[in-house]
Amino acid sequence: MPRSGAEARRRLRQAALELYRERGFDQTTTAEIAARADVNERTFFRHFPDKREVLFDGQADLRDALTRAVAEAPDGLEPLDVLLGAFREGGRILEENRPFSEPRQEIIAATPTLRERELAKAAALTDALADALRRRGVADRLAALAAQTGWAAFHHAVQAWIDDPSQSLDAHLSQTFADLRALTGHYVRGSRGAG
Amino acid sequence: MPRSGAEARRRLRQAALELYRERGFDQTTTAEIAARADVNERTFFRHFPDKREVLFDGQADLRDALTRAVAEAPDGLEPLDVLLGAFREGGRILEENRPFSEPRQEIIAATPTLRERELAKAAALTDALADALRRRGVADRLAALAAQTGWAAFHHAVQAWIDDPSQSLDAHLSQTFADLRALTGHYVRGSRGAG
Repeated sequence: MPRSGAEARRRLRQAALELYRERGFDQTTTAEIAARADVNERTFFRHFPDKREVLFDGQADLRDALTRAVAEAPDGLEPLDVLLGAFREGGRILEENRPFSEPRQEIIAATPTLRERELAKAAALTDALADALRRRGVADRLAALAAQTGWAAFHHAVQAWIDDPSQSLDAHLSQTFADLRALTGHYVRGSRGAG
Repeated sequence: MPRSGAEARRRLRQAALELYRERGFDQTTTAEIAARADVNERTFFRHFPDKREVLFDGQADLRDALTRAVAEAPDGLEPLDVLLGAFREGGRILEENRPFSEPRQEIIAATPTLRERELAKAAALTDALADALRRRGVADRLAALAAQTGWAAFHHAVQAWIDDPSQSLDAHLSQTFADLRALTGHYVRGSRGAG
């Protein structure tokens, strides 16, 4: 039996990931996950409310890290700078969890109910970021727009990092936000008909 | 019996919307929809592959309008200008369908399988926009980012229009893209510590 709670949780995540890949998500029971992790099923439910949530374990940490980083960002930063700083913080969590993050994406993509939960969580996370920006005094309308477009850019950077792990997520984030700046920078200057 | 195919399709959409609101999506059958629309069930299946697709009837038109507008935009426009022009075109379809669009959103929000299909369709539409930008010669990485952030802005404008119908969708789009420009414009100029 794993001694610490954190160790049990890690083993449960690992066991779930293995079983979902081997048998499919729908064919796996919480009892089987607990057995593979060498803990009681009661221990499973002490850590996770259901077998879907095992795959979203990191998301609560991610949300907390992102909203805390938004709250604690220096005064005077523009909303997108605040978000970029927060995504850099959040990115550290994803990088630490890469061995878990990659197979997890495959399982989610293959399971409609998991895809739905993932999209719902992303929507909730975007709302949380918008609220955190509002608490910094960002106007209501701008906060929602910044959170939605910023999240789209973050999602884009994470996908680029999964496709190309030769660069860090931090490097992909820098690239993506520079691209976004260039895209809308050109837009600001206006170049209709400039060829 | 409605005479034209277009009329039958319109009646089927209307009947489905009414029944989904009255009984819920899951409790409604295609036979009931056909009966309420005063057509045969065979006619239903000539127009729609299943009862979910009735609610996404406008989406194929929207995708076609958006990708065509991207393809036909004048040379020399920056990607976000191309997308804004396309969203203005697409917006016309949404405005014409407002009596359908509004209750539709409520039904989708209340039905998990419909939410999932909507999110999957939005993802497919974003991919289609990115492809259309690539065909204009926009670099691969920029095309995907522009489509994703542009779509986030479009989604934001549509939500603002549903919340505040006193302004046209076109006006909300102008506002949203001006906000996006301001957000990233500040970002371009940089204002760290500017208070």
